[in-house]
Amino acid sequence: MKIDGKHYRTIWVNPDGWSVEIIDQTKLPFVFKTVTLRTFEDAAEAIRSMQVRGAPLIGATAAYGICLALRGDASDEALDRAVEMLASTRPTAINLRWALEEMRKAVQNRPREARLGAAYARAAEICNDDVETNRQIGEHGLGIIQAHADRKKGDTVNILTHCNAGWLATVDWGTALAPIYRAHDEGIKVHVWVDETRPRNQGASLTAYELGAHGVPHSLIADNAGGYLMQKGLVDLCIVGTDRTTATGDVANKIGTYLKALAARDNEVPFFVALPHSTIDWSLRDGNAIPIEERGGDEVKFMTGKLPDGTVATVQIAPDSSPAANYGFDVTPLRFVTGFITERGVAPGSRDALYVLYPERREAVGTRRAS
Amino acid sequence: MKIDGKHYRTIWVNPDGWSVEIIDQTKLPFVFKTVTLRTFEDAAEAIRSMQVRGAPLIGATAAYGICLALRGDASDEALDRAVEMLASTRPTAINLRWALEEMRKAVQNRPREARLGAAYARAAEICNDDVETNRQIGEHGLGIIQAHADRKKGDTVNILTHCNAGWLATVDWGTALAPIYRAHDEGIKVHVWVDETRPRNQGASLTAYELGAHGVPHSLIADNAGGYLMQKGLVDLCIVGTDRTTATGDVANKIGTYLKALAARDNEVPFFVALPHSTIDWSLRDGNAIPIEERGGDEVKFMTGKLPDGTVATVQIAPDSSPAANYGFDVTPLRFVTGFITERGVAPGSRDALYVLYPERREAVGTRRAS
Repeated sequence: MKIDGKHYRTIWVNPDGWSVEIIDQTKLPFVFKTVTLRTFEDAAEAIRSMQVRGAPLIGATAAYGICLALRGDASDEALDRAVEMLASTRPTAINLRWALEEMRKAVQNRPREARLGAAYARAAEICNDDVETNRQIGEHGLGIIQAHADRKKGDTVNILTHCNAGWLATVDWGTALAPIYRAHDEGIKVHVWVDETRPRNQGASLTAYELGAHGVPHSLIADNAGGYLMQKGLVDLCIVGTDRTTATGDVANKIGTYLKALAARDNEVPFFVALPHSTIDWSLRDGNAIPIEERGGDEVKFMTGKLPDGTVATVQIAPDSSPAANYGFDVTPLRFVTGFITERGVAPGSRDALYVLYPERREAVGTRRAS
Repeated sequence: MKIDGKHYRTIWVNPDGWSVEIIDQTKLPFVFKTVTLRTFEDAAEAIRSMQVRGAPLIGATAAYGICLALRGDASDEALDRAVEMLASTRPTAINLRWALEEMRKAVQNRPREARLGAAYARAAEICNDDVETNRQIGEHGLGIIQAHADRKKGDTVNILTHCNAGWLATVDWGTALAPIYRAHDEGIKVHVWVDETRPRNQGASLTAYELGAHGVPHSLIADNAGGYLMQKGLVDLCIVGTDRTTATGDVANKIGTYLKALAARDNEVPFFVALPHSTIDWSLRDGNAIPIEERGGDEVKFMTGKLPDGTVATVQIAPDSSPAANYGFDVTPLRFVTGFITERGVAPGSRDALYVLYPERREAVGTRRAS
């Protein structure tokens, strides 16, 4: 997508041919700053500190982390060590593990001298595939938004989203926001209710930023407001992303997603989850088994923003002595999901829906069960 | 309640016998500062700017606002003007209108020279009644918490609350927090999940502050977290306050309350509403008719807190160009309410429950219908 007219992806290899550049998303929306990753530890730290975040982008960064690890040492031991360390950075996003396994497959049966080239090639492919996948998610989601626009006879379609599942969460385009960009570019009148997404404010700082940069009408709201908006008929549909979805359609996503799904159900508002195949955990059949990351309480007690003089500062918003708990994700059970928007099309929110879109996975399950 | 060992109410008449002192709640938790109200405009501004907030305290402040108005001019016109202006400060809290009508009744049939004394007497009575009412809410709510403690064989009872319905929201004790203080004082192990309550952060700044000052164990959480906590069995019950509840039990409360009620229902967690009689709007039978205040978007886009040097500053947390919408309240329909904790006892969440506790109101409805 474009920033000040210049096209950016969220991650790229520098002209030196090996170091990797990312946008430091902890500095947005007030400072646009890129960071150079030179070691796999740099990549791990970028993921851990949320300079990069969003399940697909975490996967892409981890892939390049493997490349950086192999530069210094292309041995099996170095590969294992890098995979293990990168996998430990964020427990919930399955794309991280998926990308690391893809990288391992791409290099492990090659001679050492061929590994580095193969790794960079596979990482680039993962990034390009992500862009194409998200473009297709945009195409398939467009039909849903178009249907609402038709129903409303061209009146603005109001879409609520939570956290950031836009181009900043992926290599480009985004997942949940891809259909919105596509609809906006198509001339459909859309307006996005942007959940602030406490405690890390990815909605206020990232989704509002990228929608604004692209010219998509939007309003920032407190996370508390979505239920009221749905009660008042001010939301036509919800679209969210996911960090991990089980084979049976339980959706782990940023904490608070479940509350919006409950409100959507209570007010008969369609609730869609946009995701690429790499976010599906085919090994899990129960959302309760998804590990939920617990982060430091200071993310709740402190808030970063811009002071009147334009400098960026962090303020404490709660008493010194009050502890805070900080769970990163929740799981929205399948029964609240209207449908899944994937690169292969839209599947209804039913237990078998993902297998219908990815029949090759059903065969794998069948094989595993039979054995 | 006590601050640094000294007992405070949230509003009191100064030793001069007429000016009114309040705690400036916009400065908490970092600065404890009181403000002197000398005119009814001062009182109106204190309510509008949320130096005082919480339905019962808004009512008490409005009552003293009438006293201050009558000091300058005890005419019917001055009374009407003050009532009208004070009533316009916050549209949702019914206690405001209730207190203003109580004040009007107390003074309107008296000669001018007797009005001021009668006004101060009635305002003091409203405050004292509020304290006693809340003490009784605490007594009645204690039984509910005790039952959970018994069920858990003395293990900690985890209670989730939203916004601030503690002593800072009332003249003393609080509504939703009164049973919690009472249980804690009784030696029952309680732990409170404190919703941050964006955008004004009354949970992070006021509820965490007053629970901490009283020594009640608590954890601050993002508003997004409550659903997850309930899914994981980490919430035994919810207790919230209300700004206006209809005769049929629909509950207007701080925006986001409805989302917690939905999660409570989905996870079979009891959801209680604590309220004094003055919060019940006997004229309304449908929560959709409750006016919902819309406040400025800057409350969402800016956040106040303490800088590392200890000074208090306000930071902007969203892009300059992104608009924000800011609805103050939502309505939780009766069907999600397990019960109402009032000064007369606990009523189940059924359509007639409040009439059972306040039978004199049913007769009033009956009369009105027959006429």
